[in-house]
Amino acid sequence: MRVPLSGLPAKVTIYEVGPRDGLQNEKAVVPVDVKSAFVTRLADAGLRTIETTSFVHPEWVPQLADAEDLLDVLPRSPDLRYPVLVPNEKGLDRALANGVTEIAIFGSATETFARRNLNRTVDESIAMFAPVVERARAEGVWVRAYVSMVCGDPWEGDVPVERVVSVASRMMDLGCSQLSLGDTIGVGTPGHVTALIEALDAAGIGPDRLAVHFHDTYGQALANTLAALRAGVTVVDASAGGLGGCPFAGSATGNLPTEDLVWMLNGLGVDTGVDLDKLVATSRWMASHLGRPSPSRVVQALSPASETE
Amino acid sequence: MRVPLSGLPAKVTIYEVGPRDGLQNEKAVVPVDVKSAFVTRLADAGLRTIETTSFVHPEWVPQLADAEDLLDVLPRSPDLRYPVLVPNEKGLDRALANGVTEIAIFGSATETFARRNLNRTVDESIAMFAPVVERARAEGVWVRAYVSMVCGDPWEGDVPVERVVSVASRMMDLGCSQLSLGDTIGVGTPGHVTALIEALDAAGIGPDRLAVHFHDTYGQALANTLAALRAGVTVVDASAGGLGGCPFAGSATGNLPTEDLVWMLNGLGVDTGVDLDKLVATSRWMASHLGRPSPSRVVQALSPASETE
Repeated sequence: MRVPLSGLPAKVTIYEVGPRDGLQNEKAVVPVDVKSAFVTRLADAGLRTIETTSFVHPEWVPQLADAEDLLDVLPRSPDLRYPVLVPNEKGLDRALANGVTEIAIFGSATETFARRNLNRTVDESIAMFAPVVERARAEGVWVRAYVSMVCGDPWEGDVPVERVVSVASRMMDLGCSQLSLGDTIGVGTPGHVTALIEALDAAGIGPDRLAVHFHDTYGQALANTLAALRAGVTVVDASAGGLGGCPFAGSATGNLPTEDLVWMLNGLGVDTGVDLDKLVATSRWMASHLGRPSPSRVVQALSPASETE
Repeated sequence: MRVPLSGLPAKVTIYEVGPRDGLQNEKAVVPVDVKSAFVTRLADAGLRTIETTSFVHPEWVPQLADAEDLLDVLPRSPDLRYPVLVPNEKGLDRALANGVTEIAIFGSATETFARRNLNRTVDESIAMFAPVVERARAEGVWVRAYVSMVCGDPWEGDVPVERVVSVASRMMDLGCSQLSLGDTIGVGTPGHVTALIEALDAAGIGPDRLAVHFHDTYGQALANTLAALRAGVTVVDASAGGLGGCPFAGSATGNLPTEDLVWMLNGLGVDTGVDLDKLVATSRWMASHLGRPSPSRVVQALSPASETE
């Protein structure tokens, strides 16, 4: 039953991260034809923004070493956006050589994660991003900035809101068009999310330039999304079937499943353009390829109990 | 990090349903000493309202055939409430003979579920409840009314809000003190939940007399809870470890896990009186007894990856 809730947007853009963020931690390399079929099916289900891969060094993330091959074979359409993660200038070179028109850079709100993930301080990472964004913009490429660990960090604990605002502001000042707030370890709750969005707004980064990126590690992803929508955000990152998350913790701690998000938005009468049945079928197909069930509640609920496909 | 959100209550009462609603569908009978230890540990974790069992006919729910034995051995304390489900006058006789001071009756918003679960029409079920509530009140017993299938029904589909208001009003008019709104199949979304609470308020059943009872079948339970709290509800049903749900669908479609609720409320600075670590330890212990992992995200996240206990 569709029953609107006051204060929510009429339309939400889902930024699908399954092919990149979802698959990147998979140990067994997924063949490029399976990845291509995955993206094609996601697009056929109505998703219009799909982060497809990353131009990270192949040794760091072997799963995404086929970035060029994948982009070569993906279906193209004027209304389909395929942003690609770009860690540095070498990645940008590869992206530009392959005709990529939208990129994402990936920063950290905390020093510890910047050091561990980027092998740099936060200052050094922003210095690394500066020429990437400048050159991308000079080429007419749209740039998204991820800021990770916006609520908590496994090593540092709680992350102060001011810290996130500071890092986010510096990344946006480089010339990025969109900021994705990543609660990478899923510890945040709705008040914290609301406070972050309000603090960013006060610092000049309004909710029209924000996206939210939640992990369901503690079951909070959808409640946090609801809070973000009420605070004016209209772009929500999600991963088909809930793919992704920490590989050492099984299938339970991945990204917000796109299906669970679409179920809520459908019920709220918020337009996403997504065909839920096609999406669920796609996630069941991918779960079958990966050899384990999807952690998405909606995928589980809409699959036969004897699921084997 | 504790960050409040405007419009939420300062304190929420968790109505713990694990021992009754959570265990009732378990095929293998849990020994009474395990049930007693479960309730004792829940109370030690700070839960103050625990629905412990049901005086349903033992042939219908063999798992709860030990109701008298369990009540005999439970720890007692002036601040501990142990409501017990009572399906009819025979159940009430048993409850009164065992000194029960709080009962719950279980109705349905839909004809199909009333017929399947109670073997009666909605009218007939309310006629059956009338003397139960009347006699209970005459004995000074507090009565809660469950209304199930408040958002959707597996056979009838969407359930109109007016239908729920009508059945709820008739049950409350019998003299019940609290109404628990059960989205038994978990299909509801936050706008629907808000509309239900507002419609009940308009019909004279204010949020101070309501509880909400969500299942996480489609991943909506916590987002729906957030909406209910914003609409003024301060009593939330939850099941330790997410016990319960449809046995044919594995462990994935149970009640809202108490731990996931407590994580959100802790983050929001809403007082519950619950010690999360003790609660998680209790759910891990019960999962070990039942031989399968808890579906609670928080229990999974806070358990070692090599969980075997």
